Amino acid sequence: MITSHDVARLAGVSQPTVSRALRGDPRVALATREKVVRAASTLGYVRSEAGRGLVTRSSFRVGVVVADLANPFFPHLIGPLHDELGVLGYRTMVFTERPDAPIAAEQLLDGAIDGVVLATSLLDSPLPEELGRRGLPFVFLNRATDGEGDASVVDNEAGGELVAARMVEMGHRRIGGIFGPANTSTGRDREVGFRRGLAAAGVSLDEEVVRRGPFEFSTGFGGMVELLRSEVTAVFCGNDVIAFGALDAARSAGVGVPSAVSVVGFDDIPMAAWEAFRLTTVGHDLRGMAVAAARLLVERISGGGPVRRVVLEPRLVERATLMPPG
Amino acid sequence: MITSHDVARLAGVSQPTVSRALRGDPRVALATREKVVRAASTLGYVRSEAGRGLVTRSSFRVGVVVADLANPFFPHLIGPLHDELGVLGYRTMVFTERPDAPIAAEQLLDGAIDGVVLATSLLDSPLPEELGRRGLPFVFLNRATDGEGDASVVDNEAGGELVAARMVEMGHRRIGGIFGPANTSTGRDREVGFRRGLAAAGVSLDEEVVRRGPFEFSTGFGGMVELLRSEVTAVFCGNDVIAFGALDAARSAGVGVPSAVSVVGFDDIPMAAWEAFRLTTVGHDLRGMAVAAARLLVERISGGGPVRRVVLEPRLVERATLMPPG
Repeated sequence: MITSHDVARLAGVSQPTVSRALRGDPRVALATREKVVRAASTLGYVRSEAGRGLVTRSSFRVGVVVADLANPFFPHLIGPLHDELGVLGYRTMVFTERPDAPIAAEQLLDGAIDGVVLATSLLDSPLPEELGRRGLPFVFLNRATDGEGDASVVDNEAGGELVAARMVEMGHRRIGGIFGPANTSTGRDREVGFRRGLAAAGVSLDEEVVRRGPFEFSTGFGGMVELLRSEVTAVFCGNDVIAFGALDAARSAGVGVPSAVSVVGFDDIPMAAWEAFRLTTVGHDLRGMAVAAARLLVERISGGGPVRRVVLEPRLVERATLMPPG
Repeated sequence: MITSHDVARLAGVSQPTVSRALRGDPRVALATREKVVRAASTLGYVRSEAGRGLVTRSSFRVGVVVADLANPFFPHLIGPLHDELGVLGYRTMVFTERPDAPIAAEQLLDGAIDGVVLATSLLDSPLPEELGRRGLPFVFLNRATDGEGDASVVDNEAGGELVAARMVEMGHRRIGGIFGPANTSTGRDREVGFRRGLAAAGVSLDEEVVRRGPFEFSTGFGGMVELLRSEVTAVFCGNDVIAFGALDAARSAGVGVPSAVSVVGFDDIPMAAWEAFRLTTVGHDLRGMAVAAARLLVERISGGGPVRRVVLEPRLVERATLMPPG
């Protein structure tokens, strides 16, 4: 029979620290908690769920609210998020919402979860404020609203600026955009940064070569079909999935990428590196973003402290879909 | 203020039927329940969650256990599943599991959910039997075990046979396979059917041109790199994602598909139709499979009855990656 003393010995901490760590006591540092959870897991030490709940009124479960699992971006966030929350002693439940059926605060407030990761917030969503008012800890992941709340995001504006600067540097002047939805921080801020980067170089972005839509393949495909009628030599897409659609439209039309038109995405999901795409895109630390969100949330569940925003730096990942105009 | 009488009027049923339907009474037929839930939704009629729970001891929540959200197949199942369960009055929570941290029955048995959809069961998983013993209703979706339980699956063996027959008919004789894991029903049965189809035509499948692995891109990529050293003219892949990896390996190596080697997948997920792939594959009714699972589970939650297995017919979807050997 494995006891908490065995866990303490392996983790190199005291037995009371093991107990505190495993019940989510805020006095235990995250690093220590990780050590303890790892040791407990290695030894197969299990505290009874009921006992944990009784002592702490915690469920040790976290909810992840996500709208669009069919977007291959989110699974790549949810995997590392799940793992890091596991290391911190929490289980993950995913709440999927659909455009016509958003998750309501009531569904999250029934005591079955200790906190919430909001991964697909719309800028005008009432949910974060509602959760704040009713005292359920939450963290924004990837997308945020302009309201108050812990957040782990990439610097979307800087990413858009990077793409604009590189396109202009290569000599592109007739440039188009297929952006994400204006009511998401990722859609809005990537467009804002891109426009700022172009403006800084004295290049304009004509409204006639701008499209916006959901972060979906069809947005890129439909947008590119229309943009190919214009004279653009380069198109910035709001994310990689939109870029895959744009590439597919060019391929269908027999238009060479990048010989006739360059295409750039955002996110650098694993598919972007596939030989089928070799997409030039804005990369960021997907795993790091998920891990940071898990840690922010667990710290928030454990206690108070000021609101924090972790902002990751983007970088341009140059592959085979961006080159100087022919 | 919308009342249950308004809902009854719109749905064309009596008020007591509305009450029964919304609390999941087994005496209400599924079709009637759908009508009532739709009418309630149209009118914005909401029964208090607490009231529902008190009357019925139900949470009206269903758990979906899925291992691999990064496999783009599962989100395409979970979307329609979520929608159909919603129509039947249930909310969906996704429990993600990882190979080293499978979901335990205890996590599902704490009363927060009324039933479970098992979407990524391994053949040797103890979970279904455990749920059966402890009385939590469940349904297998896509993958099943050989044990007892309601299930909604495709006829994987028939799908494998279809591919074998078509390859042989086109004149292929040196044929390879990159199959899914042997400890999943989908991995095992697609291989079994493919072998049976080849054997029926008197064509052998040499072990040296057979690979197996997780349903992942890297399985297809690594497998194809090795198979390209042999003289195979056609390769059957355990699912579309494995096939994408195989296509990518051929593309990397400058080997033409299908001019030098044909590739066939399984599932016909939306990506298979992209211009970047134009994958010939085995299609089945993904949406229908998810809807059938939702209905089986809700019927099981509402009452008893014999175990049922819905088996969907597969069909060959011919695109651009299978042709006669050159």
